Amino acid sequence: MTKHNFGAGPCILPKEVLKLASESIINFNEIDLSILEISHRSQDFINVIEKAKKLVIDLLNVPNNYSILFLQGGASLQFFMSALNLLKKDQTAGYINTGSWSKKALLEAKKIGNVEIIASSEEKGFSFIPRNINISDKISYVHFTSNNTIYGTQFHSYPKRSKNCFIVSDMSSDIFSKKINISDFDIIYAGAQKNIGPAGTTLVIINNEVLNINSNLPSMLDYSVHVDKSSMFNTPPVFSIYVSMLTLQWLKKMGGINKIEKINDNKSRILYDAIDESNYLKGYANKADRSKMNVTFTIENDNKKKKFDEMCQHKSIVGIKGHRSVGGYRASLYNALEIDSVNVLVDIIKSL
Amino acid sequence: MTKHNFGAGPCILPKEVLKLASESIINFNEIDLSILEISHRSQDFINVIEKAKKLVIDLLNVPNNYSILFLQGGASLQFFMSALNLLKKDQTAGYINTGSWSKKALLEAKKIGNVEIIASSEEKGFSFIPRNINISDKISYVHFTSNNTIYGTQFHSYPKRSKNCFIVSDMSSDIFSKKINISDFDIIYAGAQKNIGPAGTTLVIINNEVLNINSNLPSMLDYSVHVDKSSMFNTPPVFSIYVSMLTLQWLKKMGGINKIEKINDNKSRILYDAIDESNYLKGYANKADRSKMNVTFTIENDNKKKKFDEMCQHKSIVGIKGHRSVGGYRASLYNALEIDSVNVLVDIIKSL
Repeated sequence: MTKHNFGAGPCILPKEVLKLASESIINFNEIDLSILEISHRSQDFINVIEKAKKLVIDLLNVPNNYSILFLQGGASLQFFMSALNLLKKDQTAGYINTGSWSKKALLEAKKIGNVEIIASSEEKGFSFIPRNINISDKISYVHFTSNNTIYGTQFHSYPKRSKNCFIVSDMSSDIFSKKINISDFDIIYAGAQKNIGPAGTTLVIINNEVLNINSNLPSMLDYSVHVDKSSMFNTPPVFSIYVSMLTLQWLKKMGGINKIEKINDNKSRILYDAIDESNYLKGYANKADRSKMNVTFTIENDNKKKKFDEMCQHKSIVGIKGHRSVGGYRASLYNALEIDSVNVLVDIIKSL
Repeated sequence: MTKHNFGAGPCILPKEVLKLASESIINFNEIDLSILEISHRSQDFINVIEKAKKLVIDLLNVPNNYSILFLQGGASLQFFMSALNLLKKDQTAGYINTGSWSKKALLEAKKIGNVEIIASSEEKGFSFIPRNINISDKISYVHFTSNNTIYGTQFHSYPKRSKNCFIVSDMSSDIFSKKINISDFDIIYAGAQKNIGPAGTTLVIINNEVLNINSNLPSMLDYSVHVDKSSMFNTPPVFSIYVSMLTLQWLKKMGGINKIEKINDNKSRILYDAIDESNYLKGYANKADRSKMNVTFTIENDNKKKKFDEMCQHKSIVGIKGHRSVGGYRASLYNALEIDSVNVLVDIIKSL
């Protein structure tokens, strides 16, 4: 029985990707070897990682003064690594605090140098995205989390890059879901386990201009080392990169970012409309800042709540429980989630 | 056609492991979800990682004052991370230089503090393992690479731990191949992609006594953070850990370390005997220090070399080319390589 997987990540992947991945574990590329047992230096794997990079470039229209990396350690390692590479001792980084992930990022950056919280939505439980942020001249880069999985908020416009201020964004949970203009950013990083692929690799898109700002770094934490070695400084997470390549290939085949953005707009609109029209569901996030990836809501009526839970279980809906730090519900609508699944959920909402 | 995979890593995995992994990508544990799309916080995955840890403990007889971690970044990140956690500013770490990996490790440690090369085999092309190493009182820990994949040498006895000197070992390429006494080590780390599983996770076995020596570290590089969070500080590399669990389960089922050590002894003996008995193959490593995991040799006669290559190709032997930094041949005999494959290679050697 097919489940409707609304999980927040690691999350649903396209069925055809899973099929190809499963086959390649037995016999990859018809070479009579598993994708798990080939050398990362083999031409077979080099083709995979190069294809994955090319798909990133094609799908996001990445200019050629940017490099594409597939690293390890998730966004959590990038919290530290981005600051380690960018923040000089006498400078100040500006962090926008829109939730748990932003906060974790700024705590790691504080281990490198001066950090200023230039805007925050903490006073209202991270239910909105700060606007009209003043970026003073002393700020050398601004860091923000483009989409907040836990609270269900999302930046719909971004802080502006300037000559003296770089832009760093953790896009783990909304990259590849909508158009972005790469030139507006200097470092974009994203754990794979939402719209890219399975857990185990981290995509970094980096402006070559910000390489080598700090030097003599630990090799594994130095972007320039990974750029020089084309993400092959050491053994990369072969399988996670392979499945990411398959997922990006699926995205391209189904029409790319323009197409998926329309589908995602539609999925989230249908669900938010159902929430707003119901008299027992309450959306968590400020309407203008609602995330199109993670829809957060609560049910205050215990009786309705019980019925809603039963119906979800009956209809094979999984992964809809809210994050342990906020409770309630969270329906994640990542790229691979089909509209049919959203309709099943909407029908439940309307029926109660 | 089954290939005989002598690759140095990522390397051969047991057929039954590949079969289970392939199935779980479609339907894991019969929950109608892929192992790639479940939350790492789900009970299904918690069971996997706990089982993997328990298998490490059982197979290696790990005392309960040690912690087991599954991290990311490979041994290459551990080169830096082990020094970052252990080496205080006023101390000196002692490194045994037995090849490329040792050298990379000590270069990363130098970014933290004082490093002394207390023994080296570099003068003879890393063809032997240094003996009778003097460890002076000022050395706070000794680091060594237990098996050198590139040169085909292996420590058959280890530097001794003392009250004031910890022992750190990179066992990426021979862990789980033979008995070791965990209490003789303080940190053992190993990239998974030889005897543990596929690329993408790194096993760390750490004496709790050496946690918290250095503090206020970047969270992702702090062993104590990962110990506190049971390797779930952030999203772990779910699939790599899952396949590692399957591989360790396979090892346990087939008789554990005692059994595999006998098999490995036998496999390497047969191959080394064939090399020594041939009049055209030349082993690279000093006989007493030969690795049971990576058998390195050269063929100087061009005619024989050509025939040998042809025969290997004809018999579907793959991954036998020497490392790009030394040339020649390298036959890796990891746990999952069956004796039949060794016999095929030995037959070729004898036939020429």
